[in-house]
Amino acid sequence: MKILTPSEIKTLLPQWEIKENTIFKSFKFKNFTQAFAFMMQVAFIAEKLNHHPNWSNIYNTVEIILYTHDDGGVTDKDVEMAKAIEKL
Amino acid sequence: MKILTPSEIKTLLPQWEIKENTIFKSFKFKNFTQAFAFMMQVAFIAEKLNHHPNWSNIYNTVEIILYTHDDGGVTDKDVEMAKAIEKL
Amino acid sequence: MKILTPSEIKTLLPQWEIKENTIFKSFKFKNFTQAFAFMMQVAFIAEKLNHHPNWSNIYNTVEIILYTHDDGGVTDKDVEMAKAIEKL
Amino acid sequence: MKILTPSEIKTLLPQWEIKENTIFKSFKFKNFTQAFAFMMQVAFIAEKLNHHPNWSNIYNTVEIILYTHDDGGVTDKDVEMAKAIEKL
Repeated sequence: MKILTPSEIKTLLPQWEIKENTIFKSFKFKNFTQAFAFMMQVAFIAEKLNHHPNWSNIYNTVEIILYTHDDGGVTDKDVEMAKAIEKL
Repeated sequence: MKILTPSEIKTLLPQWEIKENTIFKSFKFKNFTQAFAFMMQVAFIAEKLNHHPNWSNIYNTVEIILYTHDDGGVTDKDVEMAKAIEKL
Repeated sequence: MKILTPSEIKTLLPQWEIKENTIFKSFKFKNFTQAFAFMMQVAFIAEKLNHHPNWSNIYNTVEIILYTHDDGGVTDKDVEMAKAIEKL
Repeated sequence: MKILTPSEIKTLLPQWEIKENTIFKSFKFKNFTQAFAFMMQVAFIAEKLNHHPNWSNIYNTVEIILYTHDDGGVTDKDVEMAKAIEKL
């Protein structure tokens, strides 16, 4: 897949940050169980798109990093996933 | 709570590694859904013990870091949690 | 524990229905994953209270039945759980 | 989709029971969290196949009923799902 440029990413996903060849965003919740319920919904999306995040959780915070491993950068697949996560 | 020394930790949790004031262990599964099912069981333990991990997931791998934030190191609480995770 | 009378239940949980010695309520969501994310949060509550529902799911609908098995009726434990579920 | 006959079902899914136009099976686990971890994996399958069970849980027991709503009976879709569940 085509690697998106930083300016393309900024336009498509204004609320995500760019770091090297990845995009990331931090999500904050009321508590751990709400953070984990969010993670479960992201997990469903990941399985559906067959595209899995590199993510971490500490208590009520979830950080999601997305990039397309095979292509070594951010592609439309990551944008699709980020947009699906935003809709939750 | 009392901070455990590295040698105490090594005795109690021989399969966990020590890094600075934390312990960590990496778990590998057949695929993403099995990794996430494991995470959900860890999440139940975390809620029960009211002690939450600092953890990350990439596809079929889950890395769990444990330490007791309030005490700035590894305590019996972390050992209890690590042992509960081992039993899964 | 003390079995609550129907009128006590009605006062405490006006939005739950009474059927024989149980209370139940049906919850509807946008889709299956949102229904299941709700179920996961209820599961966390169930483990915390060590009180488990008798529940079913069809697509976007979750029906939860609560009663205290050991006492053969609805008790404060069920009210506590129903209220925790309502807060989700 | 084609509705399968009881004898076709018996051959394809010898461990599932037939009741009216559905198949069902009961699964038992060590405790509630293991039952729920199983449910989560079934939920992932359901989303992947876009085919959702009619299921219930009481503590460590999960009962799964499968049928194809649109066709009013058991079809290949249900067999595919039952086989995926069996593999967990």
